[in-house]
Amino acid sequence: MILLDQSYELLDELNGKEIIKKIELCGRVCYKSEDKITDDSAERFVRNIISRGHESVLEHVSFSVRFITDRAVTHELVRHRLASYSQESQRYVNYGKAGVTFIRPIGMKNDEAIRQWVASMSEAESAYYEILNSGCPPQIARTVLPNSTKTEIIVSANIREWRHILKLRIGKAAHPQIRSLMNGLLKELKQIMPAVFDDIKENEE
Amino acid sequence: MILLDQSYELLDELNGKEIIKKIELCGRVCYKSEDKITDDSAERFVRNIISRGHESVLEHVSFSVRFITDRAVTHELVRHRLASYSQESQRYVNYGKAGVTFIRPIGMKNDEAIRQWVASMSEAESAYYEILNSGCPPQIARTVLPNSTKTEIIVSANIREWRHILKLRIGKAAHPQIRSLMNGLLKELKQIMPAVFDDIKENEE
Amino acid sequence: MILLDQSYELLDELNGKEIIKKIELCGRVCYKSEDKITDDSAERFVRNIISRGHESVLEHVSFSVRFITDRAVTHELVRHRLASYSQESQRYVNYGKAGVTFIRPIGMKNDEAIRQWVASMSEAESAYYEILNSGCPPQIARTVLPNSTKTEIIVSANIREWRHILKLRIGKAAHPQIRSLMNGLLKELKQIMPAVFDDIKENEE
Amino acid sequence: MILLDQSYELLDELNGKEIIKKIELCGRVCYKSEDKITDDSAERFVRNIISRGHESVLEHVSFSVRFITDRAVTHELVRHRLASYSQESQRYVNYGKAGVTFIRPIGMKNDEAIRQWVASMSEAESAYYEILNSGCPPQIARTVLPNSTKTEIIVSANIREWRHILKLRIGKAAHPQIRSLMNGLLKELKQIMPAVFDDIKENEE
Repeated sequence: MILLDQSYELLDELNGKEIIKKIELCGRVCYKSEDKITDDSAERFVRNIISRGHESVLEHVSFSVRFITDRAVTHELVRHRLASYSQESQRYVNYGKAGVTFIRPIGMKNDEAIRQWVASMSEAESAYYEILNSGCPPQIARTVLPNSTKTEIIVSANIREWRHILKLRIGKAAHPQIRSLMNGLLKELKQIMPAVFDDIKENEE
Repeated sequence: MILLDQSYELLDELNGKEIIKKIELCGRVCYKSEDKITDDSAERFVRNIISRGHESVLEHVSFSVRFITDRAVTHELVRHRLASYSQESQRYVNYGKAGVTFIRPIGMKNDEAIRQWVASMSEAESAYYEILNSGCPPQIARTVLPNSTKTEIIVSANIREWRHILKLRIGKAAHPQIRSLMNGLLKELKQIMPAVFDDIKENEE
Repeated sequence: MILLDQSYELLDELNGKEIIKKIELCGRVCYKSEDKITDDSAERFVRNIISRGHESVLEHVSFSVRFITDRAVTHELVRHRLASYSQESQRYVNYGKAGVTFIRPIGMKNDEAIRQWVASMSEAESAYYEILNSGCPPQIARTVLPNSTKTEIIVSANIREWRHILKLRIGKAAHPQIRSLMNGLLKELKQIMPAVFDDIKENEE
Repeated sequence: MILLDQSYELLDELNGKEIIKKIELCGRVCYKSEDKITDDSAERFVRNIISRGHESVLEHVSFSVRFITDRAVTHELVRHRLASYSQESQRYVNYGKAGVTFIRPIGMKNDEAIRQWVASMSEAESAYYEILNSGCPPQIARTVLPNSTKTEIIVSANIREWRHILKLRIGKAAHPQIRSLMNGLLKELKQIMPAVFDDIKENEE
């Protein structure tokens, strides 16, 4: 049994300056105002369209993120329908050799609960092995694996959709597990593309 | 602990005859050939467009199905992005009062595995209770709930997308749990709208 | 040459009472609070979820509208990507027999402009005939047909998306042609389903 | 009046080698077979998933194309719903200063038709000016502009969707105008990413 903290990784090299230049170009095609493009017009242009809610031009830039998190987070995440997903398959991957990995829960605050959680992960792993050993394939043995089981997922979305995902999943109504994951991502994105993500508030918790 | 077999239920009253008449009307608008509509032209029209792969007109009719199944099935199901979902929330529903319900696995063939699975469900339920009792809310306690935990989901999609879902989830590569569920649905849909679903093969298994 | 006013028609019989009952049922599945359903709980439930912005449950009901309008309106309309369309084809329909139909423009206020517009439609129709007569098929002759050319389109969308379309296309920034069309539709929808559409303001113009 | 041939331009620098490496990585996450990645494994991997129809991993790479074409082509193009669009607006751009631009039609083969088409473009431009001069804004004057009016559009889509668009719009049933445009784009994409686009047949016409 392996216990792991959830994490994420940007899969693409993102050049913040090039990205806002492209967004400006796409926006100016609509009005044929490309002659107004200057060396430093992009940032003002992008902040302006975001403040006015004209987010469709943000769709012309997409990027991908790899998340290592638990299956409850991904069950929520894949509900976002304007994105593309490739996820580690519990049907085809056999955890019988290397052990099952679980993701440490965020927001489980008392020791008794944590002790209970660790014991439960261990029981689930044993049951998974027993069912494999009885002759069932991984896709049948997975029935006993809990929400905390580790999974990997690559998510690709355009910037408009990433903004939507981040706002929703960092907001007060979000589950602490996904909120913590997205909070880290937002921080990094703000550094790369401040004009694009500055208006979304990080969660202070 | 409650053990349940998965099931589904059509939420709308579907009038097969009216449905294919509507599809024909939508199709004939494209060619302005509404004058060719007769009392019994719809079935031939629909079978013809399906055989030629012109499925876009099938999008004008949608219907909803309620599934009672396990969380592994719904994690696969919600990957279909051209549909709408409302799902029982493990964050807001507290199973501490009435007990946790689990869905009997399809395709677990040997007694030893089934014994092991039942024991594992029982352990998971106990851990869930303990974590609730330690003061955590349901959305934290759910970390220990396994893939076999029962969930309810209402899925709405148009006929083109239902055809796609059914073909994919009944096919040879599908997981036995979702295949069995969709097989039952397909059988019923064939009786209601034969012209629309007859070309999709049921799984004989 | 035929001149026509644009119009729309609801294609489905919509039972407002049944619709809000279905929406309530879908919403209550998430919280397993179906026991709170009473004979008159649906309207309050629906108004409440809309006021809180929880619009995803509105996706479980779809309906279809047939619009007879001009090609500039449909070029805007089909930009809504969460809907289904079947449109009269200028490639396959030959207007050489019955004459070309044009849609009277909304918002063209002075007589000189209207005179000019009528003359231009007539010229376009003649050119269309000449090109057909020279041996070209309709899909080539259509090159000369103007934005005001009449087209028919059937649009199917769920209620969440219809609300979005109506808000956007009735708003101050909308083109007068599409605004006028959608304004009429909104009025009728408010009568059928007040709880669902009351919060969207008609345009007073 | 300006007459122009339609054209397209890739907006992003596409590194074919990096693109197929990324696709391979995304695909291998599903099976946790990243250890099978070698310096030259990507091309075989990508060709293999395409031949088996497992196209979802192709969604992780998106790119943008700017098209300069006519309004009949864009009315067809924007029907593809899994893409993002920014288009030159006939509502906000005023062609009264620089003249209206029209796109030379593909597939208009006889001289009489071409003569007629040129005359019709000229009439339409004059009517557009007259209506502007009578005091109407561009969004009203555009009613007289024909299908052949030039427009610019930036289209962003992922590779899976680009493959779908190209197959459909190059196929035998496609309109010659859009087919010719897409044929050129396909040729260039095959040179950049042969493994990704080789199986789509160019149109020989």
